[in-house]
Amino acid sequence: MDVSNMSIRLPDWTPLVEGHLATGEPIVNLAGDGEGVYDAIFVGGGAAGRFGSSYLKAMGGRPLVIDRWPFLGGSCPHQACLPHHLFSEAAALLDRERWLAGQLWFRPAGEVKASILELVELFRRGRVAGHAFMNWQTKTQLGVEYLLNTSARVLDPHTVQAGGRTFRTRNVVLGLGARQKPIDPAECPGGDLPGVYDFGTLVETLDYEPRRCVIVGGSKVAVEYGSFFQAAGCPTTIFTRNPLLRTKTMHHVDEDARRYVLDGMRKRGVEIYEGGVPLEIKGTDRVEAVVATGPDGETFHIECDFVFNGTGERPNSEPAQEWLGVEVGSAGEVVVDRRMRTSVPDVYAVGDLIGPPMEMFKARKTGVTAARNVMGESAEFDFTEYPDFLHTTYEMSWVGLTEEEARAQGYDVMVIQMPPKGLDHDDILLPCAEGTMLYAFLKPGLSGFQKCVVDRATRRILGFHHVGYGAKDAFQYLDYLLRRPEGITIDEMGQLNELFLNPEHFIQLCRLRAGGAELVDI
Amino acid sequence: MDVSNMSIRLPDWTPLVEGHLATGEPIVNLAGDGEGVYDAIFVGGGAAGRFGSSYLKAMGGRPLVIDRWPFLGGSCPHQACLPHHLFSEAAALLDRERWLAGQLWFRPAGEVKASILELVELFRRGRVAGHAFMNWQTKTQLGVEYLLNTSARVLDPHTVQAGGRTFRTRNVVLGLGARQKPIDPAECPGGDLPGVYDFGTLVETLDYEPRRCVIVGGSKVAVEYGSFFQAAGCPTTIFTRNPLLRTKTMHHVDEDARRYVLDGMRKRGVEIYEGGVPLEIKGTDRVEAVVATGPDGETFHIECDFVFNGTGERPNSEPAQEWLGVEVGSAGEVVVDRRMRTSVPDVYAVGDLIGPPMEMFKARKTGVTAARNVMGESAEFDFTEYPDFLHTTYEMSWVGLTEEEARAQGYDVMVIQMPPKGLDHDDILLPCAEGTMLYAFLKPGLSGFQKCVVDRATRRILGFHHVGYGAKDAFQYLDYLLRRPEGITIDEMGQLNELFLNPEHFIQLCRLRAGGAELVDI
Repeated sequence: MDVSNMSIRLPDWTPLVEGHLATGEPIVNLAGDGEGVYDAIFVGGGAAGRFGSSYLKAMGGRPLVIDRWPFLGGSCPHQACLPHHLFSEAAALLDRERWLAGQLWFRPAGEVKASILELVELFRRGRVAGHAFMNWQTKTQLGVEYLLNTSARVLDPHTVQAGGRTFRTRNVVLGLGARQKPIDPAECPGGDLPGVYDFGTLVETLDYEPRRCVIVGGSKVAVEYGSFFQAAGCPTTIFTRNPLLRTKTMHHVDEDARRYVLDGMRKRGVEIYEGGVPLEIKGTDRVEAVVATGPDGETFHIECDFVFNGTGERPNSEPAQEWLGVEVGSAGEVVVDRRMRTSVPDVYAVGDLIGPPMEMFKARKTGVTAARNVMGESAEFDFTEYPDFLHTTYEMSWVGLTEEEARAQGYDVMVIQMPPKGLDHDDILLPCAEGTMLYAFLKPGLSGFQKCVVDRATRRILGFHHVGYGAKDAFQYLDYLLRRPEGITIDEMGQLNELFLNPEHFIQLCRLRAGGAELVDI
Repeated sequence: MDVSNMSIRLPDWTPLVEGHLATGEPIVNLAGDGEGVYDAIFVGGGAAGRFGSSYLKAMGGRPLVIDRWPFLGGSCPHQACLPHHLFSEAAALLDRERWLAGQLWFRPAGEVKASILELVELFRRGRVAGHAFMNWQTKTQLGVEYLLNTSARVLDPHTVQAGGRTFRTRNVVLGLGARQKPIDPAECPGGDLPGVYDFGTLVETLDYEPRRCVIVGGSKVAVEYGSFFQAAGCPTTIFTRNPLLRTKTMHHVDEDARRYVLDGMRKRGVEIYEGGVPLEIKGTDRVEAVVATGPDGETFHIECDFVFNGTGERPNSEPAQEWLGVEVGSAGEVVVDRRMRTSVPDVYAVGDLIGPPMEMFKARKTGVTAARNVMGESAEFDFTEYPDFLHTTYEMSWVGLTEEEARAQGYDVMVIQMPPKGLDHDDILLPCAEGTMLYAFLKPGLSGFQKCVVDRATRRILGFHHVGYGAKDAFQYLDYLLRRPEGITIDEMGQLNELFLNPEHFIQLCRLRAGGAELVDI
């Protein structure tokens, strides 16, 4: 369908995308029928391609975005961030149903019946509205040309074919994304049995209600989806070779915060075997059991009808290598410099394709960085340090150094934390604020954890760590304050204006100590 | 009870405070039996007194705090912020029960029975744990001397009597707080009938389940408690002379955000009569009805068993006038300069006593400002501009200029908002993030509202406005960024690292426009 000269209202995009998901016919939105030379063709219209092309267009350039799906936005609204947030919100609400059962208006224990399948179906039905918005906004508000629902083929850095046409361009920006790693059949056969899912296939093909789940791997996705499955009433066991939240790509997780989260998951019934190695997924027609060794060498044989692959993702770099011969690193990532330039002139790579962190801020900002370079700026983007988060039935957010890291780096560390060290959390209704008020009054130990790591010498804050609700958004700005050349001191934090009860209590806790020449833990 | 030389564990404070709430015996925590001269005696141990005395102590000074209640922290943990947050969280959860009834694991419409009385009782039972923490922290972590559960009498700026003792001090810091204004019997008789409550008496004395509520007044408390009563199943009508959220002390409320909130309250069944004037609260033994005129002069006679006074608070300045003759303003506030000095030398005033905004950040920071001045710094604190929030069944947060204010001030305004102007919210699952995911997929129009007001000429952001969940904490830092001399531009916002799905979508929406020389609404 050629929409180039049509003015499509937002609600009309939903059936249009739905229809094209079925047919495979391209959606064409071109100026001048795609003639002339583009400044950049973005191959892949996920977060990186969409933001990069929009930025390039705003700068006065001419971008084209091509995507194999009939919508822009990529995996986030289709399979990744959006369902993860929906499922995590369900998990958080179901967590309240569990702990508050029989109190106030909550039903007695065991009476709440949630369905993973129903939530998956809710997402599957509803996600197209998100797709519609991306297509609408990109065309109507951002004025970007695109070609969707069709595969691209890059002939050289200046020529791209797609949808039966050949386009000319000054540059190519590759945003091919990443995909779930398969469970290695040499290490653990059976990963191809029906009943084995990952975050993508879950929302695409789940068609029964899982009753018992085993998760293979210890990625963020393993923690997030495992917490959701358990909260929805499907008992879940996680086998992970490495300690949870201690993977290479998940840096700066404070040990006290980590312990609060892991204890919390176990308290809710999730079985976690760190150092656990899955040996085989058994079944004839479909998954029936997982055999694994535990951390102490014991063997587990867990009957289950649902296996979830949480081993992490790998960049889709094969086409980039085949088309252009770009340099690829050991984990399959396309190698780029800080300007997102690949080893091939006029070819950039962005988003998950260039490796971890496979997060939204990085995808979008690498896209923007490529666009700025295409347009003649020498913009750089360093994403070695960043704020991070994940969900269990809580939000967990962190930025900067952990207490251990700060001590290991030789800082004279002062710690601000809530609840304070050495107290029994069940005696304290703090921390409390949005999202933990009922816990504070009925189950204080569930009201969260927070810590701020301070350097005594300079009084600068080195890191912030939070488990609870309502603080994640603030961590975007805490990241900014931490990464300024002057950083932020406990004294400056104490000067901010809090919106009490603030979900993280950092401002007032800093203020309580800011008056002293000598910094003492609180 | 003299606890001066006792080491009291946190859990032991709870029964201790509970006991003293009943007996009226003072709690004494003094060094050297209160002999010698204090640097400052804080009369009132609420937020202002507690933070001021702690800061003064940290600076090396010697403070004493005296409070009539057997705990520190003042009205916040006893009657104000803490119950308001508990009730607002209940309202938010009950709001989901209502809109999602019959879907997923939610019960069919009408089956959820919440009880205002039960929530009040939950708070009443649990609040002492908060009190215990304040007493424990102030003694054990902060080392501040205090005398609780006894009235103070200031003889002169250097002499204070309390608990049968006389204390000497270099300065007095008055933190006497504020109290609910009564409903003026000349304008509306019947305000003294049983069944008429305010936020304080509600938690102290409610002993039945309210079935029908009329709120007199349009303060923040009126909006917050009204939303709670309605969500808990008690139909509520608000009569307010001034438009809601348009009082003098609630500045910078954007009209679109305001409309979203008011429409939302009405959609949930709250009847709001702006320009409504209550004429009489009727009843023989207790409240039976409220008679009022509506905005168009019509007369209302609303039968009800519960009237809530939401007319706002007035400073407790009478003792300050009587003791010391300090200057008091037209609204009963003790007049201070930016150093919190009253008209009487060596006498400071802090917190709600000095008038609006009666918010936590102001209370605490005025206390700290007084402490710093007592200790010889010439610290100033200007609280004419600040971030603000309130609850309905949503969180609403705002800082900086509204769109109307910016236009009125002559700025060439660009607006970033979600959902975008002119679209039907029911077509868009955005904005969505923590707390609005289920709404996004089941009732998109309930997923919130956000706006960012930008000056085209300088590209500086002038104001942020948000209705939803999970963004309030961030507004503390947005306030900081806005009030820097250089402020923050849309381009700098676009450079931040978002934690997607971020509850306010400001960073990425700014980034989508940051590339352009010409700023266009989005």
